[in-house]
Amino acid sequence: MGKLLIVGSVAFDEIETPFGKTDKILGGAATFISLAASQFDVESGIVSVVGDDLPEDYLNLLTAKDIDISGITIVKGGKTFYWKGKYHNDLNSRDTLITELNTLADFNPVVPDNYKDADVLMLGNLHPNVQLSVINQMEKRPKLIILDTMNFWMDNTLNELLEVIKHIDVITINDEEARQLTNEYSLVKAAQKIYDMGPKYVVVKKGEHGALLFHKDEVFFAPALPLEEVFDPTGAGDTFAGGFSGYLAGTDDISFENMKNAVIHGSNLASFCVERFGTERMVNLEKTEVNKRLHQFKALTQFDIELQ
Amino acid sequence: MGKLLIVGSVAFDEIETPFGKTDKILGGAATFISLAASQFDVESGIVSVVGDDLPEDYLNLLTAKDIDISGITIVKGGKTFYWKGKYHNDLNSRDTLITELNTLADFNPVVPDNYKDADVLMLGNLHPNVQLSVINQMEKRPKLIILDTMNFWMDNTLNELLEVIKHIDVITINDEEARQLTNEYSLVKAAQKIYDMGPKYVVVKKGEHGALLFHKDEVFFAPALPLEEVFDPTGAGDTFAGGFSGYLAGTDDISFENMKNAVIHGSNLASFCVERFGTERMVNLEKTEVNKRLHQFKALTQFDIELQ
Repeated sequence: MGKLLIVGSVAFDEIETPFGKTDKILGGAATFISLAASQFDVESGIVSVVGDDLPEDYLNLLTAKDIDISGITIVKGGKTFYWKGKYHNDLNSRDTLITELNTLADFNPVVPDNYKDADVLMLGNLHPNVQLSVINQMEKRPKLIILDTMNFWMDNTLNELLEVIKHIDVITINDEEARQLTNEYSLVKAAQKIYDMGPKYVVVKKGEHGALLFHKDEVFFAPALPLEEVFDPTGAGDTFAGGFSGYLAGTDDISFENMKNAVIHGSNLASFCVERFGTERMVNLEKTEVNKRLHQFKALTQFDIELQ
Repeated sequence: MGKLLIVGSVAFDEIETPFGKTDKILGGAATFISLAASQFDVESGIVSVVGDDLPEDYLNLLTAKDIDISGITIVKGGKTFYWKGKYHNDLNSRDTLITELNTLADFNPVVPDNYKDADVLMLGNLHPNVQLSVINQMEKRPKLIILDTMNFWMDNTLNELLEVIKHIDVITINDEEARQLTNEYSLVKAAQKIYDMGPKYVVVKKGEHGALLFHKDEVFFAPALPLEEVFDPTGAGDTFAGGFSGYLAGTDDISFENMKNAVIHGSNLASFCVERFGTERMVNLEKTEVNKRLHQFKALTQFDIELQ
């Protein structure tokens, strides 16, 4: 069993989609990542910060999955990060209506001693200085450091982002962000430019169009499972990252061949996440369901052409 | 060796992309379909119409690939269908600058006697009445009828299109067209509605995002090969259809499992088509190159998760 350290937000999300709307519910990158990773044989802990307005029930959902929350600082009198957004009809784009950083604004991450030797470090989307601070607190260099980020940090803290990217192994970003970061339209060329920034592996998330894993001259592709209905895309990217990092930590094998499997597991879990609002589907996800859908992924992608 | 009958335009294309522009060069759906199909062990013939302004050299390119052009009517004093278009910077959208139907305007297709028993009938994008006329001329029902169409016919001749669709087995359209035809955003739901119109198989082409093959409750996905550069997308969809239909005719196996392979072959050939202007790459494509790239497709998509 590998040890996985997850850094990211634990948050209130308020979501509106064409199918309905929620009150403030549990969200945040670290939440989705840890719930996905809990599907694997992995010892995982979260580093995050919340206010004391976050219901204890929400944290209990995590501990019920054996996720170590001792690295989540609860700020007395503080308020938890809050995001409110509304998805457009095609669910591929959304408007952010409210972003309140609250306790996340001056988040000073503290890695618990028992996670300073984690095998895999999953840096969820956060200020790059926070991500770098966590790397610097590790007692030994993790076997694998994975970083997720987004266009917001490219727009506002590009130098800090480029600094932390130097220290990681895998970056996960979406297609538009890969293009923004490199000024290359071709994702093949974009990946090559990103190698020069530090990461040896580049994962490009394309939402309903799947995900690409680049390494040297090789590339692997996992489709998104075609679904009758996408109900709420919130957390899909984080769930993908959680499946990817959780599987790699659980199998203790960071070869490129095993990363292909990790990309499939990440896509598989993300296909569940989008079926309900927020974390609802992930909290109640059974191993039998996960295994059944892996069979669908195999049927979706595997063919039998004899090569010459 | 199976017999493949191909119906579609043989045309002049004039193309501008961010990488350059052409004069009037050889194009047309039947051209791209037949060149792709010629990669397989198949006896193929074209039904089309051109004017006598089409250089003999262009037709010689086809006969050099053992494509039977006896079904191409050459209208004395007539002019060949001419399309001029300009692609935008991302190559995912284009403006049509000129469309001159010319001899195609009152095309009355005549199927040569020796192709009235074709095993596979590939109906390229044309007026649905022309497509239906060809079906009605067949002496025996082909084992497989594949139809390609586009939004233009949905906008202008929907009833005629719905009539011909009743008689076919496989439809190939792009994602936006599938949504337009069914009023369903989800491609899974769209495919189910299309089954009710007639076809038992639905192929949804998503350009750089690959292609989906739907049949009953099953679905298969072939990615597009990630390329450093897409030079000219003209003919990629027709090349896909030519690879798909040519492989099925050549192997004389129309099972769903073999259709998966056909989708991969179609995607593989389309990845070459876009590397040069027009038919340039397809005319000079060697079997060794094709086989080499199939290895890349396998590396791109095949994984090794033990299922439970």
